[in-house]
Amino acid sequence: MKICGNLFADIPANPPDELVSALLERPGLRIERIVSHGHASPPGFWYDQEQHEWVMVLRGAARLRFQDQESDIDMVPGEFIEISAHRRHRVEWTSPDEPTIWLAVFHD
Amino acid sequence: MKICGNLFADIPANPPDELVSALLERPGLRIERIVSHGHASPPGFWYDQEQHEWVMVLRGAARLRFQDQESDIDMVPGEFIEISAHRRHRVEWTSPDEPTIWLAVFHD
Repeated sequence: MKICGNLFADIPANPPDELVSALLERPGLRIERIVSHGHASPPGFWYDQEQHEWVMVLRGAARLRFQDQESDIDMVPGEFIEISAHRRHRVEWTSPDEPTIWLAVFHD
Repeated sequence: MKICGNLFADIPANPPDELVSALLERPGLRIERIVSHGHASPPGFWYDQEQHEWVMVLRGAARLRFQDQESDIDMVPGEFIEISAHRRHRVEWTSPDEPTIWLAVFHD
């Protein structure tokens, strides 16, 4: 893991799966770049995470769904949200037209 | 503090001082948005921080200097760097032409 770099470098075009890169790993803290390109969570799947996740969209567009909430959340560049541990959520949609780049900070 | 929002909203034009907004505060963890517009650290000033700082530039342009390093680091959008606690550094320059938006994750 490099201690510096550019998040917008090495963005693959149309990767078959979401691409997750760890940018920092410390006890109780992990910073990741996630690249989605039209990916969504599988039908019926919900993330149920041990850690809290502060996440933002840097580029692209996405839609998040929470099991405890009626309306989805549209994530455009700059949008951030703190997702508490075990708050069940899924990625309902990401733009098929361009890569969506997320920055995620997982923390205890 | 809101648990969600847009980092690129409410960017002041030419603020007199750097604008620091806390986005998340937890024990041992603080996420901040910092807006600079031509600001630099005062002459001779060095940051000497108790916490580690993972920082990236989202928009704009900046130049970081480290006391232990000859060459400055140009920070363009997407550039990130992990600055260890007590590694003395300063902001040598930020673009006078547009706001520079930083995302900083301070951690123990």
